Amino acid sequence: MTDTARQWVLARVPRGQLRSDDFELQPAPDPHRGDDQVTVAVLWLSIDAANRAWMQGPTYRSAVVAGDIMPGFGLAQVLDSVDPRLPPGTLVTGDVGWRNLAVLPARHLTPVADRQPLSHHLSVLGITGLTAYFGLREVGAARPGETVLVSAAAGATGHLVGQIARLDGCRVVGICGSADKQRWLSDQLGFDATVNHRSGDLRAELKAACPDGIDVYFDNVGGPLLDVVLSRMNLHGRVACCGAVSQYDTSTPAPGPSGVPGLLVTKRLRMEGFIVTDFSPRFATAIADLAGWVDDGSLVVAEDVLDGLESAPDGLIGLLAGTSQGKRLIHVADPTAV
Amino acid sequence: MTDTARQWVLARVPRGQLRSDDFELQPAPDPHRGDDQVTVAVLWLSIDAANRAWMQGPTYRSAVVAGDIMPGFGLAQVLDSVDPRLPPGTLVTGDVGWRNLAVLPARHLTPVADRQPLSHHLSVLGITGLTAYFGLREVGAARPGETVLVSAAAGATGHLVGQIARLDGCRVVGICGSADKQRWLSDQLGFDATVNHRSGDLRAELKAACPDGIDVYFDNVGGPLLDVVLSRMNLHGRVACCGAVSQYDTSTPAPGPSGVPGLLVTKRLRMEGFIVTDFSPRFATAIADLAGWVDDGSLVVAEDVLDGLESAPDGLIGLLAGTSQGKRLIHVADPTAV
Repeated sequence: MTDTARQWVLARVPRGQLRSDDFELQPAPDPHRGDDQVTVAVLWLSIDAANRAWMQGPTYRSAVVAGDIMPGFGLAQVLDSVDPRLPPGTLVTGDVGWRNLAVLPARHLTPVADRQPLSHHLSVLGITGLTAYFGLREVGAARPGETVLVSAAAGATGHLVGQIARLDGCRVVGICGSADKQRWLSDQLGFDATVNHRSGDLRAELKAACPDGIDVYFDNVGGPLLDVVLSRMNLHGRVACCGAVSQYDTSTPAPGPSGVPGLLVTKRLRMEGFIVTDFSPRFATAIADLAGWVDDGSLVVAEDVLDGLESAPDGLIGLLAGTSQGKRLIHVADPTAV
Repeated sequence: MTDTARQWVLARVPRGQLRSDDFELQPAPDPHRGDDQVTVAVLWLSIDAANRAWMQGPTYRSAVVAGDIMPGFGLAQVLDSVDPRLPPGTLVTGDVGWRNLAVLPARHLTPVADRQPLSHHLSVLGITGLTAYFGLREVGAARPGETVLVSAAAGATGHLVGQIARLDGCRVVGICGSADKQRWLSDQLGFDATVNHRSGDLRAELKAACPDGIDVYFDNVGGPLLDVVLSRMNLHGRVACCGAVSQYDTSTPAPGPSGVPGLLVTKRLRMEGFIVTDFSPRFATAIADLAGWVDDGSLVVAEDVLDGLESAPDGLIGLLAGTSQGKRLIHVADPTAV
């Protein structure tokens, strides 16, 4: 090992909006590998809105508390291992944490193909792409000809949801936060219409963008926007609840949507939350579909890369502020010949 | 026709809580039957929380506005008709309205069997029983061994939901509004546990009554209770959204549940609204099941009957205040020999 081991620790649980000084970059103790463990060099880190939600309390995982090494999904290369399934050089994904070197149980790591670019394992072919794929197709159950609306449409998951919906024959409308993103979604990704949630009259814009109502809402943001969308949903519409990023970076969440449960009854709507790992038995099929669309050029994969482990906190803070476009990643190191 | 024709008209759209003087009992014009119409004598009226919701605005039907004859589902007897499917004497159900005599299009009326007691056509074998049956089994998808929680458990739909869930092998917990109702649910209807929503510590009582969490919530009331329940739902739980009676009799609805969409995501919950008529192709099978349970004594049918057309407004006002137990009905007249 040539690199100095370093790690980001959550110095304190943020109050209100996340700040750089909620984190502290520390030298890490020299990692000592047990027999059932693997030493890895982290190559890429995935920056996700969920990272912030973990600080609010227990979710589908335990809460991140002050003093914890900041958890985070990533792509790594095995440096040292006695596990025959994970020889040195193997590329793996897993919750490696915000650090450049890690020692982890072998069972927490999943080998991945040496497919270029490696970053795709954390975007279109990783959790993000799979979330878009299963959330749209299985939870939203979008059918050809239906109107699919996606929030945070220029984000990691959203920009893929819209494109998959288009490939599936749906009319696709995206909600995003700037005119630049609107142009990008329309001109580069083939969205049929877009709405800027920072516009003055969201309700009117949404109505104009969805003249036939909304059949499927892929919701990444929650908050007041959800209430506006519910009022435009069609009978028997579906809301795939993927996340609530509008409520993560705050200590005072907004009240819930006033249309629940009243509009769910009168319009017979289904709202359903999901976590992509519930679909893990079918990941291989989905990855083959996604890789096929990437290879034949029908899916544009946008990655928004910051360089160096030290940029991880700012990467997350910027993501929460809406500055990223596509999948935000931290490039930590290149693979080495083993 | 020997009776004087009378009808209840909504004199004004209620502001805040519904009051007796929001209605006016009027002599009705002498009904004149067109060739495609049927004259009926109303025998029973169904009083439903939805009657109040209709006054708040358009739902799955147009809003009830000032000057309208108050709509309402009922059981009637055909007095005069040239439709060979509906000869005089036929018993029918339909939206007959709050009146003793009505002239209606034949296609709006459904003939029913001359099964005693006739009131069952509006309770266990009518919309109410079918709502309990399909909401629990199809929307809630309750499985044997699961914990099913139902709100307004001593009400028309709730008392049937709990009993059907018990017959289906579930553990059944009911929420109601008085100690008398609690005793009735436990002692007469076989509920495994009950909770009084007027108790001081609802959260603690719910936890005690549902030590293994909640798998299915059949929600008749919405409002703040829904939020408390969401926090006790198990992973992959289902909420069958049947109504939101807590929000009907007011002009200032409560905010939505703060757990939406956050808890839906982390617990992978499904919330789904329904209207029983969506299941109409399968009504005959369900009615056969329900009638079988009534006949073999495994289903207790509670009816809360007020006498006379003049009692309709007070029947609805009392229902909204929680004074009824079981299915509230108005007995308007007895059938006559034709």
